[in-house]
Amino acid sequence: MILGGGFGGLNAARTLAHANVRVTLIDRHNYHLFQPLLYQVATAALSPGDVASPIRWILRRQSNVAVLLGAVHAVDTVAKTVLIDTNHPDVAGAASGASQFEAVPFDYLIVATGATHAYFGHSEWAPHAPGLKTLDDALEIRRRILIAFEAAERETDAAARRRLLTFVIVGGGPTGVELAGALAEIARESLRRDFRNIRPESARIVLVEGGADVLGGFPPHLRDAAARSLTKLGVEVRTKSVVTSVDEHGVTMGADRIDAVTVLWAAGVNASPVARSLNVPLDRAGRVLADPTLQVPGCPEAFVVGDICALQQDGQWLPGVAQVAKQGGTHAAKNILRLMRGAQATPFRYLDFGNMATIGRGSAVADIGPLKAHGLFAWFIWVVIHIFWLIGFRNRVAVMSEWAWAFVTLQRRVRLITGEPRLPRGDTPAAST
Amino acid sequence: MILGGGFGGLNAARTLAHANVRVTLIDRHNYHLFQPLLYQVATAALSPGDVASPIRWILRRQSNVAVLLGAVHAVDTVAKTVLIDTNHPDVAGAASGASQFEAVPFDYLIVATGATHAYFGHSEWAPHAPGLKTLDDALEIRRRILIAFEAAERETDAAARRRLLTFVIVGGGPTGVELAGALAEIARESLRRDFRNIRPESARIVLVEGGADVLGGFPPHLRDAAARSLTKLGVEVRTKSVVTSVDEHGVTMGADRIDAVTVLWAAGVNASPVARSLNVPLDRAGRVLADPTLQVPGCPEAFVVGDICALQQDGQWLPGVAQVAKQGGTHAAKNILRLMRGAQATPFRYLDFGNMATIGRGSAVADIGPLKAHGLFAWFIWVVIHIFWLIGFRNRVAVMSEWAWAFVTLQRRVRLITGEPRLPRGDTPAAST
Repeated sequence: MILGGGFGGLNAARTLAHANVRVTLIDRHNYHLFQPLLYQVATAALSPGDVASPIRWILRRQSNVAVLLGAVHAVDTVAKTVLIDTNHPDVAGAASGASQFEAVPFDYLIVATGATHAYFGHSEWAPHAPGLKTLDDALEIRRRILIAFEAAERETDAAARRRLLTFVIVGGGPTGVELAGALAEIARESLRRDFRNIRPESARIVLVEGGADVLGGFPPHLRDAAARSLTKLGVEVRTKSVVTSVDEHGVTMGADRIDAVTVLWAAGVNASPVARSLNVPLDRAGRVLADPTLQVPGCPEAFVVGDICALQQDGQWLPGVAQVAKQGGTHAAKNILRLMRGAQATPFRYLDFGNMATIGRGSAVADIGPLKAHGLFAWFIWVVIHIFWLIGFRNRVAVMSEWAWAFVTLQRRVRLITGEPRLPRGDTPAAST
Repeated sequence: MILGGGFGGLNAARTLAHANVRVTLIDRHNYHLFQPLLYQVATAALSPGDVASPIRWILRRQSNVAVLLGAVHAVDTVAKTVLIDTNHPDVAGAASGASQFEAVPFDYLIVATGATHAYFGHSEWAPHAPGLKTLDDALEIRRRILIAFEAAERETDAAARRRLLTFVIVGGGPTGVELAGALAEIARESLRRDFRNIRPESARIVLVEGGADVLGGFPPHLRDAAARSLTKLGVEVRTKSVVTSVDEHGVTMGADRIDAVTVLWAAGVNASPVARSLNVPLDRAGRVLADPTLQVPGCPEAFVVGDICALQQDGQWLPGVAQVAKQGGTHAAKNILRLMRGAQATPFRYLDFGNMATIGRGSAVADIGPLKAHGLFAWFIWVVIHIFWLIGFRNRVAVMSEWAWAFVTLQRRVRLITGEPRLPRGDTPAAST
């Protein structure tokens, strides 16, 4: 049984395609989400359908897989069952009521339920600073960004208007950098002609990072290149600034204060709470301290992969990126097949293909083995690799045509405000399980 | 001032493009919605961004128009002001609180706030039978349809599974017929390979109509052709069946009962509640009984167009279709220009270009003047005209490519379940205002 249809779970299912096993894949969403492009949904460049595909559809030809829509509540490693809630708001048809649990038995298990945003123990910040993990998160962020401009257009008080046109992004990793770059482009280019009372290009976009540099995982000269690109786009980059409080009117960093209606969270993540139910030691981010074989200590039939798994390689913790999850999913599936034929599980070895991030249109940084590039060339590599990674020919064509269109016209087509205001569920599981 | 950015309001704004007037257009959504294709969003064939465009963007080059995001609460024809709620859930940034009213003055007014679904006074049916008027409605219906199949896949009880795979559409007008046809295609073709425990093609789809025929507005032989096409697709067509109750387990029609988890409402509409605030006589559907010039009786500066306006022509009530709204919007704007230069307002005359509806892929009925067609040829006309009508070159290309893709592969790309369960707001204004 596989829990989670993200990069890890999906790769595990595909690895088992020709094996004589019955696979059940459980996810609380009916789609696989291509997370690296999620920020483009949040910034109205892509539609949800461009970055997500139904899991059933992806696996439709793999007849040994059954896909179930369900919210995983807990794993019982002793009874070897998974408890799923079939009346969870994510999976219930009409208005959901009380939880309704169902125990599903397994022989072998791969837990790939990912991570959700975490507020360093300050869950009270969650309503004021939504994070970006799911499609619904992305639509909520899009809604907030667009409504801030709309409210500013109506507002007559200068200070209030200023607050509405100030956007703070907390966290200078790839997601934060990409969000900040995209937001700067929206304000300076996409919305330029749309308003009568405000000048969208006067919006203030602040990227707040606790560490010394943005993109801390990259080599130093690429970090500098990224910071320069952001500044050129008009983003205020504030490094060495640790957020000490977030409220509905803005962000405080020690003695410093920024008044802003829109605050976005791209800082911490916590592993999905399913990890806790495994009753094994976890690290500070709630991840399972796995055996080198990806097995759960004391339960050789259960494996953890991706963001829910904490593993060291050559003295370094493996990062929470798509490649680690994908390779982990494949390896865990192969280890299960080894165990089934009576062999030993082998240790997981992550092959690092490199790291990339975009900073607005036509600019990126890439750190791929010997290749360390920034600017237009890096952006071009980024585009090609992301198109190539996308699942489904249809999505590739759609995203390519959207990008070509946006590149030429500077327009972001899907600037639609949908849904009603939503209170983010904070530290509770918003991640795919 | 124009209230509503639908077909009527948008055409009115465009007609005033070169006039020496300052136009304010107020809508509770930031987008113009191409309603004739909304059922395709509900049935996962198109993305919201394919059938909607930001109103600001559509009018970006028309410098005499200011667009405001706001929920219209009431019109005061004596004080000549419009009361808008800037803290309504549709337009508020974070969680919305108490209403916050703002009075906006006008010299001339065009009310084009449209209609919302109505339950013949049975607003208690609303949560069990969502209607299709807004993008959020469409996403809610998509969510319910897809979750019904997912829940059926999990269900082990045969009767419960049967209820989950029964879909009832109430109302045999164009929307009901198009929804039923699209649902039949989803079940028989798009989902065919996706499930392991259920056969989606065994789903039961029932179209319930109170009158003697589906598509009552069409000539008799086209009504018959539509009914035959539906039956061929596997839709159960029940005419002369008046719904007497809807609850969470199904629909009752007199002595007849259908057990179904998913019931969709395509039957009645009521005019937007803004009509009531005008303090003039309304018809049974809450529409303003307008002067032949589209003026509000007793208030020559205010006009009503589209679904909020009740007007007879040659002894027949004008239907609630896009063409009536579009032509009405243009006429009302011209009448305002006439009044401004001291001339008389002239009566509105609707030019009927005809009527169309699709029944699944490759089949439609068209009643366009002397041309009365059905089948593939009518469908082809339908495709061409709808592509042509769509606003924005980008949308045309996107929708065309989606249709070409769907036609070839039978796939519906955007089968994504997003959002949380939503209780429809029933007879309260869900329509664009």
